[in-house]
This record gives sequence, C-alpha cells and structure tokens, in this order.
Amino acid sequence: MTGNSFGTLFKITTCGESHGGAVGVIVDGCPSGIAISEQDIQIELDRRKPGQSSITSPRHESDSVHLLSGIFEGKTTGTPILLLAYNTDMRPEEYETLKNIYRPSHADFTYQMKYGRRDVYGSGRASARETLARVAAGAIAKKFLNQSLNIEIISYVEQVGELRAQIDHTTVTPVSIESNSIRCPDLDIANQMIRLIETIKNEGDSIGGVIKCVIRNVMPGLGEPVFDKLSADLGKAMLSINAVKGFEIGSGFSGVHLRGSQHNDAMAIKNGQPIFTTNHAGGTLGGISTGEDIYFRVAFKPVSTIRKQQKTINLQNEEVILEAEGRHDPCVLPRAVPIVDAMAALVIMDHYLRHQARQRV
Amino acid sequence: MTGNSFGTLFKITTCGESHGGAVGVIVDGCPSGIAISEQDIQIELDRRKPGQSSITSPRHESDSVHLLSGIFEGKTTGTPILLLAYNTDMRPEEYETLKNIYRPSHADFTYQMKYGRRDVYGSGRASARETLARVAAGAIAKKFLNQSLNIEIISYVEQVGELRAQIDHTTVTPVSIESNSIRCPDLDIANQMIRLIETIKNEGDSIGGVIKCVIRNVMPGLGEPVFDKLSADLGKAMLSINAVKGFEIGSGFSGVHLRGSQHNDAMAIKNGQPIFTTNHAGGTLGGISTGEDIYFRVAFKPVSTIRKQQKTINLQNEEVILEAEGRHDPCVLPRAVPIVDAMAALVIMDHYLRHQARQRV
Amino acid sequence: MTGNSFGTLFKITTCGESHGGAVGVIVDGCPSGIAISEQDIQIELDRRKPGQSSITSPRHESDSVHLLSGIFEGKTTGTPILLLAYNTDMRPEEYETLKNIYRPSHADFTYQMKYGRRDVYGSGRASARETLARVAAGAIAKKFLNQSLNIEIISYVEQVGELRAQIDHTTVTPVSIESNSIRCPDLDIANQMIRLIETIKNEGDSIGGVIKCVIRNVMPGLGEPVFDKLSADLGKAMLSINAVKGFEIGSGFSGVHLRGSQHNDAMAIKNGQPIFTTNHAGGTLGGISTGEDIYFRVAFKPVSTIRKQQKTINLQNEEVILEAEGRHDPCVLPRAVPIVDAMAALVIMDHYLRHQARQRV
Amino acid sequence: MTGNSFGTLFKITTCGESHGGAVGVIVDGCPSGIAISEQDIQIELDRRKPGQSSITSPRHESDSVHLLSGIFEGKTTGTPILLLAYNTDMRPEEYETLKNIYRPSHADFTYQMKYGRRDVYGSGRASARETLARVAAGAIAKKFLNQSLNIEIISYVEQVGELRAQIDHTTVTPVSIESNSIRCPDLDIANQMIRLIETIKNEGDSIGGVIKCVIRNVMPGLGEPVFDKLSADLGKAMLSINAVKGFEIGSGFSGVHLRGSQHNDAMAIKNGQPIFTTNHAGGTLGGISTGEDIYFRVAFKPVSTIRKQQKTINLQNEEVILEAEGRHDPCVLPRAVPIVDAMAALVIMDHYLRHQARQRV
Repeated sequence: MTGNSFGTLFKITTCGESHGGAVGVIVDGCPSGIAISEQDIQIELDRRKPGQSSITSPRHESDSVHLLSGIFEGKTTGTPILLLAYNTDMRPEEYETLKNIYRPSHADFTYQMKYGRRDVYGSGRASARETLARVAAGAIAKKFLNQSLNIEIISYVEQVGELRAQIDHTTVTPVSIESNSIRCPDLDIANQMIRLIETIKNEGDSIGGVIKCVIRNVMPGLGEPVFDKLSADLGKAMLSINAVKGFEIGSGFSGVHLRGSQHNDAMAIKNGQPIFTTNHAGGTLGGISTGEDIYFRVAFKPVSTIRKQQKTINLQNEEVILEAEGRHDPCVLPRAVPIVDAMAALVIMDHYLRHQARQRV
Repeated sequence: MTGNSFGTLFKITTCGESHGGAVGVIVDGCPSGIAISEQDIQIELDRRKPGQSSITSPRHESDSVHLLSGIFEGKTTGTPILLLAYNTDMRPEEYETLKNIYRPSHADFTYQMKYGRRDVYGSGRASARETLARVAAGAIAKKFLNQSLNIEIISYVEQVGELRAQIDHTTVTPVSIESNSIRCPDLDIANQMIRLIETIKNEGDSIGGVIKCVIRNVMPGLGEPVFDKLSADLGKAMLSINAVKGFEIGSGFSGVHLRGSQHNDAMAIKNGQPIFTTNHAGGTLGGISTGEDIYFRVAFKPVSTIRKQQKTINLQNEEVILEAEGRHDPCVLPRAVPIVDAMAALVIMDHYLRHQARQRV
Repeated sequence: MTGNSFGTLFKITTCGESHGGAVGVIVDGCPSGIAISEQDIQIELDRRKPGQSSITSPRHESDSVHLLSGIFEGKTTGTPILLLAYNTDMRPEEYETLKNIYRPSHADFTYQMKYGRRDVYGSGRASARETLARVAAGAIAKKFLNQSLNIEIISYVEQVGELRAQIDHTTVTPVSIESNSIRCPDLDIANQMIRLIETIKNEGDSIGGVIKCVIRNVMPGLGEPVFDKLSADLGKAMLSINAVKGFEIGSGFSGVHLRGSQHNDAMAIKNGQPIFTTNHAGGTLGGISTGEDIYFRVAFKPVSTIRKQQKTINLQNEEVILEAEGRHDPCVLPRAVPIVDAMAALVIMDHYLRHQARQRV
Repeated sequence: MTGNSFGTLFKITTCGESHGGAVGVIVDGCPSGIAISEQDIQIELDRRKPGQSSITSPRHESDSVHLLSGIFEGKTTGTPILLLAYNTDMRPEEYETLKNIYRPSHADFTYQMKYGRRDVYGSGRASARETLARVAAGAIAKKFLNQSLNIEIISYVEQVGELRAQIDHTTVTPVSIESNSIRCPDLDIANQMIRLIETIKNEGDSIGGVIKCVIRNVMPGLGEPVFDKLSADLGKAMLSINAVKGFEIGSGFSGVHLRGSQHNDAMAIKNGQPIFTTNHAGGTLGGISTGEDIYFRVAFKPVSTIRKQQKTINLQNEEVILEAEGRHDPCVLPRAVPIVDAMAALVIMDHYLRHQARQRV
C-alpha cells in the first residue's frame, strides 16, 4: 500500500536511503528448509555493486550482506528473513551544494512535492542504492527456483544507445554474460558498447539501453487471470526499477506489424507432448505461462546524473545552472542486469506459491 | 491475490464469463457523495460494446448496466457499488466444435493447465468480455477525476499495423477521437486504418496496433516510491488488458537513442511557478507525478481469432486443423480505447486516494 | 482496505444494502473442480433467513440465491463466483419516520459522521441483511472443507440472557442443533430460551446471548505466526459480525483463574501418535492449529431495535423520543448460528490455502 | 499474507528470533515531518524489557533500539523506518536439553508441524521477544496520535488470577499506572497482585490476568464497515499477542445479561453537541468510532513456561518428563501493558489514515 513492498505470498519489504544507516529488506513467505547463506546473496550483490569496472560508478561500497533472522542451522525456517547492508562510503559533503536544487530528471522535485521534505543526500530513498535490497531478496528466490524447480533466469544487455546485439536468446549462458563488463554475451558488440560508454563518460554525459531477460523451464499454469497476469506482474516489476521507461514481452511493439495468421503460435505434438511451433507470445497466453521460454525487453533511459551543465531551479523558485559532482554511472545497464534477474525471480517465485496454494488435494 | 481485483484504496473486483449469467464488478472505496447514474456508466460501455461499426464484432450485446448497490438518492454512500451486465446474446452452439481444441494464441491451453478444466464457451473468463467490468468501474473513477479534480484522460488509436499517425498528443480532444469508428483523431489516417481493417476482415485475418493515452492536470505528488511507482502501476494496468504486449511511458524505447544531456528535462520558472521545458519523462520522476502530462503507448497484438485455417492440437494430444467460426473483431483497437481510459482512471484514482491518506492534518 | 473484503487467498467481497437492489458477494480464489450448486448455498441461507419461527423477524425475504459466474457444468472453474440475492420485501415507508433520527445503538450516527450521508432505509449497509452474503460465501467454504478435508464446523446457541446450557461440545451434532428454533442442542434449556425470547418480544424488548463454535478435524499447522494467528483471525471474523461484543478461545477469560501448571495441556502418545491430554488451548498454540478441536465462544449484545420508547436525537441536534416500528428480531442468536459457521469456514479455508502455498515440492 | 505484517496504510513488518541476530521492524506508511528519535521509542521499550522488577524475567537485554532509515534531520521523510534491537544476552546452552522436546502449551509442536523444522533456541520466532518489534513500531504511532490528534491510549493491569481491581477507567492516568511494578493503578490491589506473583514464582508456577485498555479522544468516524470494523481490528490486534485467549469490548460478555432497553446507549444534546448518556458500546457502533471512550479487556493465560515437572513428549514420540530451566516471567501482565498500548496505537493509526484517504476534497 505504501509502495515499499513487492509480492503477495513471497513478499519483500525494503527500506533504507543512500546515505542513511543501512539498506535492508525483510523477505517474508519463504518456504522452510531452503539452504541459504550470506555467500549465496553476496554473489548477486557483487554483480550489482559499484566500482566493478571502468564503466561503473567508483563509489566504494563493499555491500556486504548481513543475514539477521529467519535462518536456523543454515536453512530457512519459514519465518521472515532480514538482510542488511550497512552504508559505509558516504560522502554527504558531495551533496551540500545540491541540497537546495532540483536536479533535472531526478526525483528531487517530486519527493519534495509529495512529502513536503526529502533526504537530500545521494537521492535518499530514490537512490539506485535501493535496488541493493531487491537483488538481495531476489537472490533467495533465484536460488530456490533454480535448485528446487530447475527454473533459469538469464538477463543480459542487448542494446546500448544505437548499438544493438542480434542474439538468439535461447543460446545465452550465464558464463557468456559475465565474460565482459557490460554483460552482453556478444563479445564483439560488447566491446563496442564498452568503448561507447567510456567515450560518453569522458564527455560527462550518459547513455541508456535495453536489457533482455529470458526465463526457462517455467511450468505451464503460473500467473493469475485478468489483473495479475504473469506478463502484467513482470511488467510492473521491471517498470518499478529506476530509469526504466518501457517493457515489452514476446513480440512486443514489433508484433503490431504482423497479421494474426503470422503472429499466432501454432501448436503441435512432439514426443507425445504439446509444443508451440513458434513463441511470439513470449511464454504466456491469457497471462498464464505456457511452458515455453518467457522473454521480454526492458528499456532504460540514460542516467540522469551528468557532469555537463544543465538548467534547473532551486527551492526558492529561482533558475540556476547545475554542474554536478559526485560518483555516478555513465550507463546503468551492466549493474541493472542482476536487478532484472532479481525482479524476475521475485515475480516467478510469488506466482509459483500462488499457484501452489490452489492445487487440489 | 487471486488476480480478479485491481487497486488498493479504490478497489475493483470483477467476475463473469463470456457465456455465464452476467459480467460484473464491485467497486469498493469510492468516496461518498459522488453523483453516479447508470447513464454515466452506459456512455463508456457503449464505446466498448460490440456491433458499433463495420470494423467491430457483430455480437449483439446491449451491455446494459445495472447499478445494484452503493447509491442512495443518486449519490454514492461510500459503500460498495455493484455493477452488472447480464449476458443475453449467447450462442454456445458456436463453440461446440471448439470444446475439444486449444485455439492458437488463446488462453485455452493455459487455463486447462492451470485449473485442470475450463469454461469452453466464448473463452469463458479469458474472454475480452471481461473488460466490460473494467470499463464500468473505470467510468466512475473517470467521472470523479474529471469533475472533482479536473483531470482529463484521453486515449486514441495511434497505429494500426504499419499505419502510424503523427499526432501531437497535447492537442487531441474527445470529440476528435469519437469522430470516426477507429478512434484515431487524424481523420486521414483514420480512414486508411478503417480500409485496412476491412480488407483484413475480408481475408479472415486480424491486425494489431498501438493506443496512446495522455492524462492531463494530474497534480504533482501522485505515485508511491520504489515498487508502486505511478509508471509501474500504469504499466501493469495496461499489460493486464487482453492482447497487450508492450508499454512505454515518456520517451520509452526510443529514449535509448538519446544522451542524458538530451533526455533530461530542464526546469525553469514561468509565471512564478516551476515548469519543465521538455517532458521526455512522460509526467513522472522517481515514479511520482511531476504535474506535466502523463503519456504512454500500449501495443496490442493482432486478435488471436481468425477465420484462416490454423494448425493446433486437441485435448487428446492429436494434431488438428482449426477453422474458426464465431463473431470476432478483426482489430481490437477501437473497442480497446475506452478500456485504456478506464484502466488509467483506476490507477490515477487509486493513487489519488493513497496520496490523500498521508497528507498532514 | 475498504472493509468489504475478507480473506486473502480465499477472498470474499460483499455488497448490498437492506433496501437496495440486491445483496451479493464475489468469492474469489476457490480451487477449481468443486461441485457447487445453488441448493448447496440455499440450505445455509434458509437457516439465516427471517421468518423461520416465532422468535425471528417476520420480514418475508425468500433470500433465493443466484449463482451467476465461476461455475461450469456444475463445478467451480477457479474463476470468481458471483452470488446474488435480490431484495424483494422492501418497505421503505417503515423508515420514513426514522430518516431524520439517530436510533440508539445503531450505526446511524457513526455512518453519518463517517460518510456525511447514509442510506436511511433498513440500516442500509449496516443492516444485518449484509450477513446474507457471508453465509452464502461461507457455504462454499464449508462444503469444500467438509467434503475434501473432513473438517466439521458446528455452532450452536449456548446462552440466552442468564440461561446457559451446560453442553459438552464434543458431543454436539448438526441434527441436535436444528432440532429446535433457538438452535441449542439441549432441548430442555432450548425450550426455556424460546419462552424467554417470546416474553421479551411481547415486552417490545430484546436480549443477547452466546454462541459456541467447535471446529473438528483441522490438521495441525494451519495459522500464520505472529499477527495472523488462527485464533486472531477467528476473533476478527467473529467480532466483525453485527452485535458481537466478545470472543474467547479455549479457556478464554476463565483461564485467568488457573495456574500455569493447571492450564498447560500435557502431551502424551496414544496409538503411536502425539495427543494432548487436555485442550485448554482451544486447538491452537502460537496461533497455529494443534489438531485438537478448535472451540470458541462469541458474545452477542441484545438487538438494538426495540419497540420500547427511547431517548435520542435527530439530525438537527434536537432531543426526541423514539418509538420504533419495523420488523425485527427480539434475539439475533438463532439466525446468527449459520453466520458464525460461515465466518469460521471462511477463516479455516483461507488458512488452509495459505498453508498449502508454502508446502515444499 | 505471511502473518508477519500488520496494518494496511500504516503497515509494520516484523522479523527476528529470540536467539538470532536481531529483532526488527519496518514501519511503512508513516506521514512525513513527524519528529521521532530513538529516545521516543526507547521509553516504550524500557517498559517492556525484561529485568525491570522482582516479578519479571531476569534476562538482561538492554533492548537498545537502532533507527536505521526513514528519518532525516530528526523527522520522518515518509519512507520506511527500520528499527532494530540486536540480541545480546543469548544463552543457547539453556535450550540444549529442550531441543528434542515439545514443551507443553508452547508453539514447539505446532511450528514443527507447520514448517517441518524450527529454531529451537528460546522459542525462536514464537518467543515473546517478537513483541519488542510491536512496541517499537507502536511507539511511533502512539506519539503521532498523541501529539497530532490528542488521542490518549491507556492500558493497565485490571486482574491477576482472582484479584480484580474495581477501577473507573475514565480516571486512570499514565502516572498512576507506572507507580508500581505490576502496572495496576489501584495501589492496594497492586500490592496484593505483586505478592501473589512472588508466591507463584517461588512455587515455580505462573499466573494469568486481564489488561484493560481505554482510548480517549478518538474522533467519530474511524473504522470501516462490515469486516474491518474498528472493534474487529482491535480484537485481532489483541488476540495476536502471545498468550491472549479473550477479548471483549464495551459491555462484552456481561452485556448478555442486559435487555436491549438497558443496553442501548441513549443520545442527548449537551452544550449543543450530540453525546451518549451511557457507553455500553465501548466507543464503536457498527464498527465505527462514536467519539466516546473506546475501552476493552484482554485476557492472558498463565505463562506456559513453569519450573514444575510436566508430562510431555519428544520428537521421537516418546513420553518424557520436563523440568524447565531458563529465565522466564511468572506473569506476563506488567510487561504486556506496553504491548497492548502499542497494538491499540497501530490499529487507531491505521484507521485514521484509512479514514483520511476518502475524505472529500
């Protein structure tokens, strides 16, 4: 109700500001008996943390996760799991000059309008640091789905600016994604992307792109009809990530160019089992999983923080010129890959539990 | 939890199948004292109903709404409002041959997988007839927003197949949308779209398109941070509509081609008030409304029901050829316009109440 | 959020006023494949309806239920079930003199304060007629629990005014409850209760009492820890019924008189299985079912509507004398028995689904 | 959904076990601009903490609260507030002998049945230590209600075993409650209660009692009709507290002995304003606040942990004799007073926000 929780039966509630005491999350609704360690979670956090490479923010957070409840003898007990990462490399002084200014395309103005006040350091709650909590919680879901149900979630950078990789998503592996700092499995395009980002970084500017996600081995039947379609919940999950401006599943916007006779996915029998001969649907029909790969694309706008001069206003309603400092990413894409993974895992996990609830005895 | 409710403080719960007794909705959480009549709702339902024109399904439902609770002396009492439309023009015999078949790109297979059984007539709950309930409920929200808060919600068809209108959304009026049967305010393109759909209808095929929606005069501050961003909730609302495969807000997927310095919306002072000099954001920052127009695009796939022969399978896992009968739309777009309006109204209404809850005394 | 829904995974949303078009309920979350007929529901409604006997209100509602969605070929499909009873015997003229008056101990004053207006006929939404929807929805849960899980829910009148039956709840049968019009399985006390109510009715007065409920064969493990304890959810369910002022489970208020060494329920092994040698707990520990009988008591205040003269005020803030007319129950207890059954069934059903959701694969 | 959250618009989610890393709570939905310090919360925690007096458990937790998010420059920002108390005085060795045993009237057996495993130290999540999080969160609500709305919440011990104080709840002050270690404002009875508890403690036994709570200055109109009646939500809140077995509001169970003509609260005009001449209702009608004092009673069973020998079973289904060690309270009542306060504050706060959401513009 207050926007800081996600999910229904596998429910997370997050908290924490960029420059407060900690960023945290309570994961509630995890089945008991799942082996979970801090290391399982740290692996995913390390993919999200700043300072990984030449194309990410140099902020030096270790983002060490602390697992403070819900685990007994290394396994979940079914009670809520508290995960915390304390903030360490805070530099509030970097924000002193920004206290009185609404940075363009940041949430400064809207938070001020909504709440009448705001935490001025490092974007407060609107900081991308908030996504740390998503990745931590998603790591639990991702592990459960993979180990108990063999469900695989694979996200990668498909496009940066005009550079779009032509990749068959059915062939992508986790190793190929992690083979380079931009997390694009096509190494040639990846290198072009990295150079482009470095150039833009030097210009004090920023750039956006597209992340593609594919989810494999989801059983048919997940997703609730009408409002909580699996596709709608995936869409909401992705659109809730900072900087996301678009979501398309299956054929998406390009499906508009096809006729029904081209777009419909024919069914056939293979080895005695129903199959779909194509997958324009992207793995859901009527909002419910078909058993085929679920795949979708997520558009990220260019990062709002740039070093170039910008026109804006201050809290006294005066026009001013902003020249930003601080430690920022020229392109959010490589660090957003584990966030997309995490949100996808949270949606699938939640719908798995919802589906299971109503199975007949 | 079960997928048939939408919203939190302004909450709707829908029910009803294509060929059952009725399609209905309970609207819960409406403030008291709002003048609402069956006629207010019927106006919107008439925009959605079949048989409006040469390019919509010939099913002859009057879709007359019945207002059965929650109103006293013409105004809301604050108690739940029940709206019903009884099903009248049902032809279950048209579906006898389909009982045993999974129609391609319909929800037949997934409902069967999820529930172990399904209502075989007219797609049951997965029928687009379900959206009647959304439009009825949305009509109440739309009226409240317009009359109490001066908020205007304007949806129109922007694209059908390859035909894309170039329309400045700030200039579109309700009258221009209703001036033609495809609901595209550019009359020239509208006529091309209508001819295209008629051709496709004659071929026994179908076609998709894009609806654009603009919401005007939303006060700054609506939307909850993190997961329930206004943009995320609008995205979920749209992606929950049958046949929707994509959603983008503001610059959307094309924002990927801009640098941060191009994409950021500068702020300035005009007549003593903060304004944004551009609106690539699409009216939200950090998921909270800025006060600028909220605008987004919604992609609809081509209608799944076509008369052309298709390969599929039956419940006995045998491959079969399907030749569909029944009464269907070659293009869902014109009837989907009031659905997009309705879902947008429900999201804004809900967030308005959520915002109001936490205002200081 | 708006108070007209109950449950989470087995969720009902009710609507309807005493003198509006209909009273209804959408039951959402029912597993598919359950045989449900209007007759299954009518049986329970007939136990609640007015005019059953000399000690109930003479209002002549048939309370015929209409099942308008969610059923296909006699069984649930997993989609929402709409149940409606149209209002027929409405006499708004009986309320003309009450329009301007706050009846003592009714919700007239509080609805007016909350909403600024209210439906003045027959208490509007605050009418006990609202409970019809609960009983209809509960009938589905009750049937499922009984037929699929062998869970039995048994409520009966234990006390009317000072008359309290001494009944071993483990021995009570549905037949013994239905053997008399007050629904007390001790026939001797039942007859005394009936005579007492008739006397009070003749005096134009009213009387309260206590309903006891026992739930048998609940598997261990239902109930969520901390806030959604099974005992807490049962308490809320009962306290949400009109006129209920108290709830106690197991030893309840009288448990205060015992020492821990007397109150603790020892465990032992019987036929190789864990048993409890006593059941002061009332079937839950830590809010989770033990497998023993769940039993609790519910206190109902005397009906607020009486024929005797009463002092009150009108909407112009003038003191007035009220002499009520209308058709009312001198004692709500016999008609409340199926309501207690229904609410208990809804709670158990919901917790059963919640428990099932997180069972390990 | 998972039982670890409470409230809707003012929502808390708690976590933590008796012997884990920490007990914590995220408070979500607090309006912005409220001055909150760790000290405000510590005051309430100190009333709940062990080791306060001769009649409470000697566990030596400082229960120091840490405020880790949601506050900026001493005031709330509208974002989630994380409160943590780290566990320090843990003695897992005290529980080594209990690992294999189901302690009578504890949740050991039911957690094992529900989850298949459990945290064996100090009752894990079922520990009364969980209530620390409730008190911490409630302190924020209590302060807001008191300072912004002048609402006063007053709980005190009315009864221990057979010793029942006759106290006019309208006269009780916070100072009189805190004047003695049992928190009963009648000093004479308080002393008798303390002596009784000391005797029982020496016997290795335990005892229960009743806490009464009165809430003053609640505006008329709080509470949602039908299921989320204010009375029902208060009941659920109280019944969710460990060891609570009964709840009654207003006349409660004793109201059964009155006729309607005696029980109905007449209305009159005083100083031009509507008043009630009696308050058998306990401050709500139809589940909505009347403006009169809200008052209710809460029954606590005797503490389950006693030193006396008890018969029970172990995990191997063998009958055993238990002789408990550990540090425990002979009577939970004095430490439960701030818990009742906290839960009452959370309910009123939540309903205040819910009411405010739908106020007309």
